[in-house]
Amino acid sequence: MRHLLSVDDLGRAELDELLDLGESFLDVTRRNIPKVPALRGKTVVSLFYEESTRTRLSFETAAKRLSADTMAFSVGASSIAKGESLRDTVQTVEAMGVDAIVVRHRSAGAPHRVATWVDAAVINAGDGRHEHPTQALLDALTLRRHRGTGLDGARVAIVGDIRHSRVARSTAKAFAALGATVTLGGLPTLIPESLAGWPATTTGDLDEILGRLDVIYLLRIQHERQDATLFPSLREYTTRYGLTVERAGRLKPDTLIMHPGPMNRGVEIAAEVAETPASVITEQVANGVAVRMAVLYQLLGSGATVA
Amino acid sequence: MRHLLSVDDLGRAELDELLDLGESFLDVTRRNIPKVPALRGKTVVSLFYEESTRTRLSFETAAKRLSADTMAFSVGASSIAKGESLRDTVQTVEAMGVDAIVVRHRSAGAPHRVATWVDAAVINAGDGRHEHPTQALLDALTLRRHRGTGLDGARVAIVGDIRHSRVARSTAKAFAALGATVTLGGLPTLIPESLAGWPATTTGDLDEILGRLDVIYLLRIQHERQDATLFPSLREYTTRYGLTVERAGRLKPDTLIMHPGPMNRGVEIAAEVAETPASVITEQVANGVAVRMAVLYQLLGSGATVA
Amino acid sequence: MRHLLSVDDLGRAELDELLDLGESFLDVTRRNIPKVPALRGKTVVSLFYEESTRTRLSFETAAKRLSADTMAFSVGASSIAKGESLRDTVQTVEAMGVDAIVVRHRSAGAPHRVATWVDAAVINAGDGRHEHPTQALLDALTLRRHRGTGLDGARVAIVGDIRHSRVARSTAKAFAALGATVTLGGLPTLIPESLAGWPATTTGDLDEILGRLDVIYLLRIQHERQDATLFPSLREYTTRYGLTVERAGRLKPDTLIMHPGPMNRGVEIAAEVAETPASVITEQVANGVAVRMAVLYQLLGSGATVA
Repeated sequence: MRHLLSVDDLGRAELDELLDLGESFLDVTRRNIPKVPALRGKTVVSLFYEESTRTRLSFETAAKRLSADTMAFSVGASSIAKGESLRDTVQTVEAMGVDAIVVRHRSAGAPHRVATWVDAAVINAGDGRHEHPTQALLDALTLRRHRGTGLDGARVAIVGDIRHSRVARSTAKAFAALGATVTLGGLPTLIPESLAGWPATTTGDLDEILGRLDVIYLLRIQHERQDATLFPSLREYTTRYGLTVERAGRLKPDTLIMHPGPMNRGVEIAAEVAETPASVITEQVANGVAVRMAVLYQLLGSGATVA
Repeated sequence: MRHLLSVDDLGRAELDELLDLGESFLDVTRRNIPKVPALRGKTVVSLFYEESTRTRLSFETAAKRLSADTMAFSVGASSIAKGESLRDTVQTVEAMGVDAIVVRHRSAGAPHRVATWVDAAVINAGDGRHEHPTQALLDALTLRRHRGTGLDGARVAIVGDIRHSRVARSTAKAFAALGATVTLGGLPTLIPESLAGWPATTTGDLDEILGRLDVIYLLRIQHERQDATLFPSLREYTTRYGLTVERAGRLKPDTLIMHPGPMNRGVEIAAEVAETPASVITEQVANGVAVRMAVLYQLLGSGATVA
Repeated sequence: MRHLLSVDDLGRAELDELLDLGESFLDVTRRNIPKVPALRGKTVVSLFYEESTRTRLSFETAAKRLSADTMAFSVGASSIAKGESLRDTVQTVEAMGVDAIVVRHRSAGAPHRVATWVDAAVINAGDGRHEHPTQALLDALTLRRHRGTGLDGARVAIVGDIRHSRVARSTAKAFAALGATVTLGGLPTLIPESLAGWPATTTGDLDEILGRLDVIYLLRIQHERQDATLFPSLREYTTRYGLTVERAGRLKPDTLIMHPGPMNRGVEIAAEVAETPASVITEQVANGVAVRMAVLYQLLGSGATVA
């Protein structure tokens, strides 16, 4: 594994290996001194063309817990604003001596292009509507830890703006690769027209399958979509697809409620529902640091031992 | 001590203990290698909903001198801007694995609410017009170091926009708790209408008490208040309440001049006065790092020894 | 050496010594763990009144590779925006306990003024149109490494907006001090009216000297100059002064192509030319980290050994 660009790069064995490693690092993060020297002297740079403090900090925390140095290159205040090409920026950053580049970009495929230009390891931290593979890994780790027996046979519904969601695509792929069955739900205009490349089926009637789900995975509804012709009012969205208290009451007691954050409480999820024990949203965040440690370790740590 | 939210949380014994510890850390910061391993592996996050580079860097420097890792979560570029609630942001940050959260917020009481949601230690770095307890500690340490004998009997005037100042409130409380007598001065419209909760008296005639003060503590006059009906012109403010060269000449030779920074030279303090030996404004900054080390150490360092 | 404010501060012996040290640190940066403990416990702050992510990250990387702590004080979000004077900001930063202050400022001479106010070492990271000495050092190191025999006799042309360029001034001085001959080329309106202080000659006919150059050093053409009366269209600039493929074909095979970055590909340099082996632009970036390590080590590392 030289880069992590897409969930497609990972076979089932590699997924399992990363999740096992993620479990080990989760133990590390719970130690009194939650650090290992595995990546001492390595430098991890975040190159974010779309700001996301939570994802950036998760990667930086992961890097620091492995004793790597971190560097943040954000678009707002940089030579990118002066019109420098992606390629020149990336080559400049690499020339400073970095070992891994964590890229977020509004264009699908940007991290793949970056990977062709550099010797450093490249990690896709979200590219357009395409993929967000570490989100998929943290979701898989969260589900695996709750099931005990692996994801085989788990019934998952992903609900929301599937069409514009890299999270939905990556997480659906990882869940399916690990044996879960994935159903996409929500507003029909927000479901992709073609399911080519989606290892999933769709449902027009979320309420009908609600009682059989092992996981309901809610996506953030973005306020800015409201203007679009493909979207009704937020209130109508909530009524028809939101995980209201009423709808949550029809889930099995052990159905997990997942969300990649940040939540719009009161829109795709009721505030009270987000607080129930079935909601594992903050566990997802904690697992995010652990799987990012696993990815960084796999990419940069050859020869190092996890102490 | 689990959190530091208000000076009210600290009795006299605890204040003395923090100041003693601050003195020890001040010695540490003057070593050739000004670091101790006390908080190795701990993570301190700054969560600033109001930007303040100087306060944030002071806390970060304090954390690094204790060998903690630091993380900055600033509002401008974060999911907060996407409408995430304070509670969700805080729980997300905590889930990444942080040991202390340093909060600045424009709303009074926000750090107290944060403290009810997390296991991490919460430090109030300024909430609305309410409190700024580490500022009070650094002011107290500065005064104590200059008096030698403690603050008992020290006569302090705090002058400026008391009404909108969390610094005035916290510092007045700490000074009074340590035995000083505090008088609030300046433009009557900028004095709180009620002194409930203020262990202080007011004076309408600053000039009358000038010659008896041990400390004159000047607050920053904020340009933006000028528009308000409660404020005359800057020039008039300076004439009536500014520490001009003439007015400084009527202080005792050993009266200390304090200011929390950043100064508006020529407004609340004359440029020449800020440069005199009686002005201890940069000492306040240096002591700020030391007391913040003390606070972080008290909250996170149980069991660790200061090496 | 207490500060690095201008190339004028450095005699030939000091230049050679810094470049030798830069070579050693370049070796360090290529180790598996590219760090030395030389500046452990020291703090390096970047105080940038003009944002430049690439320069700031280069200094921060250099500091971290020497095991120093780093702190970034950028103008946008700071008390500077509240109208604090440069002097007060600098004294506040110093009072937090910093050992070196890396200053970038839009006014020529600002770092010199800073140096008169503090005990910390001051490094000029670019002041107005005046100087950018570490850029000169990295350019000199890059050229020296390619020639093997030192810069004596090297024929260098610097082409572009010389008049507004601190890079041109500092690099011309360092190249000349090390024995190179420097010719300034490009649009006549972008050449300084007087060459006082420039150890260089000018040419009105770049094409005439092209075949004899050892180095062609291209400056970034800033889009914002286009409006000015002293500038033709970008297309016309490229035709007359840009390093097009045609023009590059008339260079000697071993002529080095240098550029401080960020490039405007297609304007001052053709995209294909930037990719040729003669282009050492990313080496300049790598050497930048090494010479900044050398400067920091010289200023702060007395007594420390490079391990």
